Amino acid sequence: MEREPATRRRGSVLEDAIFAAVAAELAEVGYTRLTVTAVADRAGTSKPVLYRRWPSRAHLVYAAVSHGHRRPGPVPDTGSLRGDLLEWLADRAALARRWSADTLWGLLAESAADPALLAEIRGDLARPDDRRQIAEIVARAAARGEAAAADPAEPLLDLPAQLLRERFLLDRPLDPAALERIVDHVLLPLLSGR
Amino acid sequence: MEREPATRRRGSVLEDAIFAAVAAELAEVGYTRLTVTAVADRAGTSKPVLYRRWPSRAHLVYAAVSHGHRRPGPVPDTGSLRGDLLEWLADRAALARRWSADTLWGLLAESAADPALLAEIRGDLARPDDRRQIAEIVARAAARGEAAAADPAEPLLDLPAQLLRERFLLDRPLDPAALERIVDHVLLPLLSGR
Repeated sequence: MEREPATRRRGSVLEDAIFAAVAAELAEVGYTRLTVTAVADRAGTSKPVLYRRWPSRAHLVYAAVSHGHRRPGPVPDTGSLRGDLLEWLADRAALARRWSADTLWGLLAESAADPALLAEIRGDLARPDDRRQIAEIVARAAARGEAAAADPAEPLLDLPAQLLRERFLLDRPLDPAALERIVDHVLLPLLSGR
Repeated sequence: MEREPATRRRGSVLEDAIFAAVAAELAEVGYTRLTVTAVADRAGTSKPVLYRRWPSRAHLVYAAVSHGHRRPGPVPDTGSLRGDLLEWLADRAALARRWSADTLWGLLAESAADPALLAEIRGDLARPDDRRQIAEIVARAAARGEAAAADPAEPLLDLPAQLLRERFLLDRPLDPAALERIVDHVLLPLLSGR
């Protein structure tokens, strides 16, 4: 089946082609060397078409990277506090992997002069639903007698996401062993009261 | 007193002028718009002189930002675990402030293709002496009967620096209230065993 010419592609079909082109360029040359021209060529469209929707390279790349990843996943319910925390961290780590660290650094650097975009990227990294989801996990653990307090202070509710982010922002591995260290040495002692 | 012409300035005098020019350009235009030409002009020297010492803009800026900040400070000894942790965090926060977040992001983004420089920047963010310094603070607290264990696991020793870094990498404030929340809600409960 032949591809429809770019001029006749519309809406989500064109958008999908553009986002796929961004992903391919990121993989091939990385954020710093990615150009809007190369993305347009690869997607079979033109620079003006891209700039009409996204005012800068950073807006285009951020749209492509965050596309389809906005909704929070379901809150894990494995039957134990440890299981829930590990699954929550693994879910969030999988979500983080759509960014390569160099794309994230490039986006942050370039959006430093664009406060609205920077706020959006920072909000995506520190999702507002994180705290609510951890609170739900802890409340269930407290009902089972596993957590010291059903309603821990906000700094504790923010901690799982923070520890994940710190690794991610420095491009350190988010493998199961790293997540287990976070849970067993930090989160469980704090939330369960040992 | 007239400034010596650039051609006759040598070694640390020239280097100081160059690093001051980098700092001024960072403050005026930010990392993304900083050029090696503008730094050379401002320092009264030439691009080739700069490129002879630093192979790229990222190397030049990193040299300027990290200049004179390599040695770890003394380990705080205030007489209490809480006081030591707060002072340690405040010292590290002051050290972090020499970077603006946009400089850090720009350096990380640009050094993504330069593994040696990236390793150096990451090593500067996660200093090898952090763990040793926290271990010293905790051992002293244990000797005073304030800490649960004289020799906590590595994930606990890394935690103070990690929580600071997470805030710093997202350009969130490192004010005293934020540091107190880290100490009172996370570090003290974990290290003192309540």
